[in-house]
Amino acid sequence: MTTLLGHNYIAGQRSANGAVQLQSLDAKTGESLPGTFFQATEAEVDAAAQAAAAAYPTYHNLSAEKRATFLDAIADEIDALGDEFVATVCRETALPAGRIQGERDRTSGQMRLFAKVVRRGDFYGARIDQALPERQPLPRPDLRQYRIAIGPVTVFGASNFPLAFSTAGGDTASALAAGCPVVFKAHSGHMATAEWVADAIIRAAELTGMPAGVFNMIYGGGVGERLVKHPSIQAVGFTGSLKGGNALSQMAAARQQPIPVFAEMSSINPVFLLPEALAVRGEQVASQLAGSVTLGCGQFCTNPGLVVGIRSSHFSAFLEQFCAHMNTQPSQTMLNAGALDSYRRGLDELHEHVGLMHLAGQPQQGPQAWPQVFKADVSLLIKGDELLQEEVFGPTTIVIEVEDQAQLAAALHGLRGQLTATLIGEADELLEYRWLAESLQEKVGRILLNGYPTGVEVCEAMVHGGPYPATSDSRGTSVGTLAIDRFLRPVCFQNYPDALLPEALQNANPLGIRRLVDGEPSEAKL
Amino acid sequence: MTTLLGHNYIAGQRSANGAVQLQSLDAKTGESLPGTFFQATEAEVDAAAQAAAAAYPTYHNLSAEKRATFLDAIADEIDALGDEFVATVCRETALPAGRIQGERDRTSGQMRLFAKVVRRGDFYGARIDQALPERQPLPRPDLRQYRIAIGPVTVFGASNFPLAFSTAGGDTASALAAGCPVVFKAHSGHMATAEWVADAIIRAAELTGMPAGVFNMIYGGGVGERLVKHPSIQAVGFTGSLKGGNALSQMAAARQQPIPVFAEMSSINPVFLLPEALAVRGEQVASQLAGSVTLGCGQFCTNPGLVVGIRSSHFSAFLEQFCAHMNTQPSQTMLNAGALDSYRRGLDELHEHVGLMHLAGQPQQGPQAWPQVFKADVSLLIKGDELLQEEVFGPTTIVIEVEDQAQLAAALHGLRGQLTATLIGEADELLEYRWLAESLQEKVGRILLNGYPTGVEVCEAMVHGGPYPATSDSRGTSVGTLAIDRFLRPVCFQNYPDALLPEALQNANPLGIRRLVDGEPSEAKL
Repeated sequence: MTTLLGHNYIAGQRSANGAVQLQSLDAKTGESLPGTFFQATEAEVDAAAQAAAAAYPTYHNLSAEKRATFLDAIADEIDALGDEFVATVCRETALPAGRIQGERDRTSGQMRLFAKVVRRGDFYGARIDQALPERQPLPRPDLRQYRIAIGPVTVFGASNFPLAFSTAGGDTASALAAGCPVVFKAHSGHMATAEWVADAIIRAAELTGMPAGVFNMIYGGGVGERLVKHPSIQAVGFTGSLKGGNALSQMAAARQQPIPVFAEMSSINPVFLLPEALAVRGEQVASQLAGSVTLGCGQFCTNPGLVVGIRSSHFSAFLEQFCAHMNTQPSQTMLNAGALDSYRRGLDELHEHVGLMHLAGQPQQGPQAWPQVFKADVSLLIKGDELLQEEVFGPTTIVIEVEDQAQLAAALHGLRGQLTATLIGEADELLEYRWLAESLQEKVGRILLNGYPTGVEVCEAMVHGGPYPATSDSRGTSVGTLAIDRFLRPVCFQNYPDALLPEALQNANPLGIRRLVDGEPSEAKL
Repeated sequence: MTTLLGHNYIAGQRSANGAVQLQSLDAKTGESLPGTFFQATEAEVDAAAQAAAAAYPTYHNLSAEKRATFLDAIADEIDALGDEFVATVCRETALPAGRIQGERDRTSGQMRLFAKVVRRGDFYGARIDQALPERQPLPRPDLRQYRIAIGPVTVFGASNFPLAFSTAGGDTASALAAGCPVVFKAHSGHMATAEWVADAIIRAAELTGMPAGVFNMIYGGGVGERLVKHPSIQAVGFTGSLKGGNALSQMAAARQQPIPVFAEMSSINPVFLLPEALAVRGEQVASQLAGSVTLGCGQFCTNPGLVVGIRSSHFSAFLEQFCAHMNTQPSQTMLNAGALDSYRRGLDELHEHVGLMHLAGQPQQGPQAWPQVFKADVSLLIKGDELLQEEVFGPTTIVIEVEDQAQLAAALHGLRGQLTATLIGEADELLEYRWLAESLQEKVGRILLNGYPTGVEVCEAMVHGGPYPATSDSRGTSVGTLAIDRFLRPVCFQNYPDALLPEALQNANPLGIRRLVDGEPSEAKL
């Protein structure tokens, strides 16, 4: 049970030395919620980074089993967060209780999945090349490699998933799994939620004997900048706007010691509707797509912001039905007043764009967001029009009609990097459009057939990433177990006696993990 | 047999549209060698990048077997480069023929090793989470992940390994293995060598039916900048100076679409001499270390530029012997006049530094580099003195004496990121100094016990990387098979029919590779 103090979390202690106090707002009414939060001072930001650095040697050298136990304990603590917690999240985000309960399960499930990964041990990437003393012209020394945590990581959470992409979300989970202490910058949109979750993590850390400083959290506006520039911080995880992600990336690149930034930023997630599918089930697609565009008030990174179809009577019929569905969708409260403001501004820009036509949606007014549909000329995509591909965060989408496959291919050329692309098609036509799927592979992190991108499964095979501007580094994912790779780096040990090697590389293979031994995968003792 | 034309290589054709002509110099005499090289025009630079982009869809979708055949063919062509080629490299670099013959073997061996990796298929990182249609509350769709080539890669070769780190070196080999077409910027220090090797690659590409544009090479000064900024280029490999690597990294970060840069830059490769080892075999260590510092005229990335020992009579004796060895080492010709100039300037700065004392070495004069030994006060390391840790490329090293283990620990704190660290110690004292090895893990890419860092084995377990400023991204290596990871990114396929999946992810597992299926490693068909 959390008593809200609003103090920063530094090295397992609470700290509130600053004069600036912040308040969390009720997302529905805009009124201040009870309690205040203390913006971290510069000294507190530094102390949080230093606490993480102090914890690093101990934490990254812990056995995988001990780290896994910590992650499992966090999961248990999150599961135990009850109705009062859920009510707090709902007040701060306007998301419904059912969604928050589901997200709580997703967040604890994610922690347990990373515990499993850590126990499995493949994240070590263990490789052994045994000595070849007789080799000519020169002998080969014994060489062994595994991966260690990159160092303390700063995480910036997202507003739209106050649990699964925030304090104990995917970035925190994967960094802790890798062996990296975390300094989390609490999101201003759900500071009380952040406190409940940070408390849960700290309880788990104490229960399992983790070093103080394994997890730290600071409150405040603008304090993240100092954190990213702090010499102890070795990597950054971020989910948010393109502008924010770019700013952090540039800050990190300009440091005396540049560090990697994994920013998940901006995607319009194109959906391609193939002709036969529209002929067979256009009405169903219209209904399902409207559901995907408006799900959670369109506040998903994978919200479909672009719909592309080939001119036909079936496409026209689909478009009419889609607009009808969008017109009947209710307005919804957004995560906060800032999100609604941005949505309003985004819609204004779309309305003012001469190449766009408004097709459906009630006039945007009042305290809630109304779903909208626009239509754009394909030339905008071909010419790489900026506005067309800017993510408008909320329940709106732009439809584009192309003449034929050739024009579709031309349109693809202008498409920027995306988290997802979706093809809706019948079995035969998917084979006919194989070229489209292959071409999209080069643009996106995930391609879906006959589904909707708004579901993002937490599993081994998920990629929630993709070429810029979807993310700042297409080689990572921020959902799924591969996310751990972002926070690991390889180290090689040459000519080491067994007693000095980490367990993962010892001859007896005490962890029983699969290793690449002299170029062949093996679980054997040596 | 190569006839030197000095033309750029673009999409399998030769091109020489520019007015600027360059000449290669004899490294020993500084005289111009026969033939001229045509600096690429802006249009030629663009054409080279576009050729790589045009080759990308075909090349990255080739089967692993076809790519491996290409790499093997390059290896065969390199092996076939004969005496005239070796003589050319020797003239351009002043390196002895034996070294070049060895490096030729290393370069072709590296290509064949990557061919093996590509055939083994673990680089795909294949993962399959099968559908769970009955799962509650929501079914799980079928999700499959593998890694694809990131896109066209620009490679800048190093001067000091004109074969193994240059035109067909580790960066080119790993990029081609990953499925990335390459645009290589020929090093100005060995342009004729580059032409011989590019010809070999092009012959191999033609023999094995690769797309035109799979490998391109341009000549010239300053042309690399335009290449790094070209929108078609998706990653950069670089080996060279800290200044050069930093400039490229900043250029890449400032692009409209930022791209990753893997720059291997600067390392002083500290060697720690433990007391017992010096007592038992100080004389031997002195001789071997002098050999390592002066090997190849000190022109190795892993040259030991810092030697740290604990005060004792044995250390004093070692130091005397080491200086004696260094005083008897001959002067050697450096790779080019620029390298000798830099060496001279670097030595001048060391001589002028008030915290440093010159211990051994003949006055630096004449056309060759003379080995040198300096001694620094430990306070310079503790305080993070800039000059102490700047790499002076050539046969020189700085010795530091510490009082005891506590001072050694303090000195470590100021140590920057390194490619390597070395411990020379007897078996028992290595256990006593376990804390030192563990602490060094956080600073370096490779730790060696009782060896010398100047040998860098090309194998599965090698890490030739490390924290900044050793490299721009500690998560990569530029030697060894893990280098391929730098040029791959994951893509996820959701709800795909088998016929549309890449072979690596099909149910029947036609490649017979190991995959992570529902969280368990498996080679089975599904």
